[in-house]
Amino acid sequence: MGMERVSFIKSRSLKFAEENYEEYLRVLGELVSYKSVSAWGTDDLRACAEYVADLLRERGFSASLRSAGGAPVVFAEGGSGSKTVLLYNHYDVQPPDPLELWETDPFKLAVRDGLAYGRGVADNKGNIVARIAALDSLADYLEELDLRVKLLIEGEEEVGSPTLYSVVRENLDWVRADGGIWETAYMRRGGSLGIPLGFKGMLYVEILLRGPSRDVHSGSAPLVPNPVWRMARLLASLKTEDGVVRVPGFYDDVEEEFLRGAEELIGRMSYEELEELKRELGLREFVRGLSGEEALRELYTKPSLNVSGLYAGYTGRGSKTIVPSMAGVKIDIRPVPGQRPERILERLREYLDSLGFPDAEVVVRSMYPSGYTRPGEPIVRASVEAAREVYGVEPELAPLSGGSGPIYAFTNVARIPMTGAGVGYYGSRVHAPNENIRVKDFVLGIKHVALTLLNFSRA
Amino acid sequence: MGMERVSFIKSRSLKFAEENYEEYLRVLGELVSYKSVSAWGTDDLRACAEYVADLLRERGFSASLRSAGGAPVVFAEGGSGSKTVLLYNHYDVQPPDPLELWETDPFKLAVRDGLAYGRGVADNKGNIVARIAALDSLADYLEELDLRVKLLIEGEEEVGSPTLYSVVRENLDWVRADGGIWETAYMRRGGSLGIPLGFKGMLYVEILLRGPSRDVHSGSAPLVPNPVWRMARLLASLKTEDGVVRVPGFYDDVEEEFLRGAEELIGRMSYEELEELKRELGLREFVRGLSGEEALRELYTKPSLNVSGLYAGYTGRGSKTIVPSMAGVKIDIRPVPGQRPERILERLREYLDSLGFPDAEVVVRSMYPSGYTRPGEPIVRASVEAAREVYGVEPELAPLSGGSGPIYAFTNVARIPMTGAGVGYYGSRVHAPNENIRVKDFVLGIKHVALTLLNFSRA
Repeated sequence: MGMERVSFIKSRSLKFAEENYEEYLRVLGELVSYKSVSAWGTDDLRACAEYVADLLRERGFSASLRSAGGAPVVFAEGGSGSKTVLLYNHYDVQPPDPLELWETDPFKLAVRDGLAYGRGVADNKGNIVARIAALDSLADYLEELDLRVKLLIEGEEEVGSPTLYSVVRENLDWVRADGGIWETAYMRRGGSLGIPLGFKGMLYVEILLRGPSRDVHSGSAPLVPNPVWRMARLLASLKTEDGVVRVPGFYDDVEEEFLRGAEELIGRMSYEELEELKRELGLREFVRGLSGEEALRELYTKPSLNVSGLYAGYTGRGSKTIVPSMAGVKIDIRPVPGQRPERILERLREYLDSLGFPDAEVVVRSMYPSGYTRPGEPIVRASVEAAREVYGVEPELAPLSGGSGPIYAFTNVARIPMTGAGVGYYGSRVHAPNENIRVKDFVLGIKHVALTLLNFSRA
Repeated sequence: MGMERVSFIKSRSLKFAEENYEEYLRVLGELVSYKSVSAWGTDDLRACAEYVADLLRERGFSASLRSAGGAPVVFAEGGSGSKTVLLYNHYDVQPPDPLELWETDPFKLAVRDGLAYGRGVADNKGNIVARIAALDSLADYLEELDLRVKLLIEGEEEVGSPTLYSVVRENLDWVRADGGIWETAYMRRGGSLGIPLGFKGMLYVEILLRGPSRDVHSGSAPLVPNPVWRMARLLASLKTEDGVVRVPGFYDDVEEEFLRGAEELIGRMSYEELEELKRELGLREFVRGLSGEEALRELYTKPSLNVSGLYAGYTGRGSKTIVPSMAGVKIDIRPVPGQRPERILERLREYLDSLGFPDAEVVVRSMYPSGYTRPGEPIVRASVEAAREVYGVEPELAPLSGGSGPIYAFTNVARIPMTGAGVGYYGSRVHAPNENIRVKDFVLGIKHVALTLLNFSRA
């Protein structure tokens, strides 16, 4: 395809986004109206999946719902050609609670002052619609682009994608592609699109220590062993005062190639976002006084171990006097590329045993490894180039997100290099009340996906 | 008064209890129907106080409601003579929650199979009615007994008696008496009445450590200080692995005379109840393997420090991934005679500062000292003798209860030696659903109070 033809398609596609985004906001409104809260597990999930499948069928895509025992996954494909791209998204959303903090109905799209509010507009329904809009903008040229497009849209991402691996494994031949676009990416404060090239894994465990068989009046406290004291010692043994994890081997097994690639990217990353986070959280300093490249390295290349919740006895208002029968802690561990969460779990178990906690019950709530894509992959280069053109600012590639995601199913199981795209921004309040996107980002997000596909088809 | 006359009064009094207890169960039913839950702070408190005052007025007692800013306190007196006895009780009750675990309406007395169910039957409305019944059984002889009887019945005991000290201080001349009967005492498994001669004090504090200004996604955990790690170190510093409190001076200042008297009582106490507790709680052993006299000494003569509640971050079901903005712990400290809770609070504060926690917020929820009565006091001897006769078994005197109570206001502020009496038993489920008393204990409890008063009048 000649450069002129490419320029023509590009300009038609960009114009399409400008002229038709209001129609796609309307579609987004329809999609938001489905209460597809995976934590609730209601029939709305299936209805929402059907709606998404119908949207794609209307466009000539073949679409079906498949499942590996969980909420249905939309499988759709259209176009044909020598190159295949896979778009991963999810139609489920977080619960809207606390409802009273929403200024508008979370399940009714509200557009006001250039912002569109509703549960899922940023995570992830807005991105589903933007991808469909981008495909529509290229509909007349897909054949010409020699591009086959697949969409895999699941409904359990917000509860940890418990069946995604099975679904991908069971449909591995279908899933395979030359490149993929991950569900999201966010606009940073500086105006650049932040694209993480991978996600940490997850090992979420709950550790329980037991004392008396029931809560007992603390008049007996001088005699009855309180599990809280042992929990305190257990936790104090997990990290040094400086915040370094003491589980032997915790930092081992990280992939060398990942680290080398990460170093390159870190050298080009800005610290602004981190400084802004520090200010916003009212922190005098980060752990160990980390700043600059050291902070970026800690965040984007090292596994983490965090306490998300701690509980024992009476945690309500006012006083109650008991020796609690149990103390529990919720720990999220995030492995990085090369690390196997099963091995980290073994190491944690061995460490607890060695400390004198063989009785500690370790309940695994979620477990999956990290996955990433090398920055030199064609799909990444295609999206970077597209972002540069659409946003007018160089996008910021991170070697990983600080957060976790089941990207391993694609990058490692199906061996698809993945880049990111999305319509959310730093103020999107993802998972929180008044989730919103900027309408201008919605338009830019459509354009970015379209140009990424266009660039990728030519790579 | 001659021995024969005493025997006559005694037999009339005992017979009165046998013949009239059903009428007093009816009165108890009326009293239970008042939802005098001090934690709710409703108008039912005043209505209940009025009802109690009216009960006493009907019997020729003068009664008034007084207050030091809290729920009204019933002040009543009757009889006259050279000796004065003070009966302390409370008309307020614990909330009935969890309601669904009650087999009958908590505010409707239900008598079934020799048991009377209802909120407050053991703690403390049954004891109020038993005292009134005992006074009725002696009504014809009070003049002859040369005994003045005062009743002080408060309405805030279940929320820590926040204004009792002020009420006692403001009415000190009225309150003074030669002996007193504390609100309660319980039947032990062996059939003996357990009478604690004192109560530990209370220093209930909540310690808060803060991290980021809001909960933040734990993707940032590698950089954002999590207050849980510091809380773990703080708690691990409060006690040795053996359960000995490490706050310097924590065990100091205990009154020598109390300890000498306690040693005597401990030598006569049985361990059965403790062994039963250990079995019931499924414990292999108590703290430090304590047993026998050592266990009794730990429980009844030493101050305690316990964690009643611990919380940080997400404590609900399932997973959430955050760095919590705060970690909190609810600690109940119980001083023993001689110890000033204010001094313990200072020592705790100094210890936290010395450990590097000057930022730990220590919020005091409740603070009062311990109080006790020497076993040789006439009122104690009177009640022991009465218990021996009524229950047919030697009562078991404990130097203190393992629990706390505002007895200091009487024993130390008003300088009244106090003994105990009560209609509850080891299975009364005090503060819990299906609170109950045995009807036979109700009758015995009436008799025990009557004979205690009779014995005391002659001491």
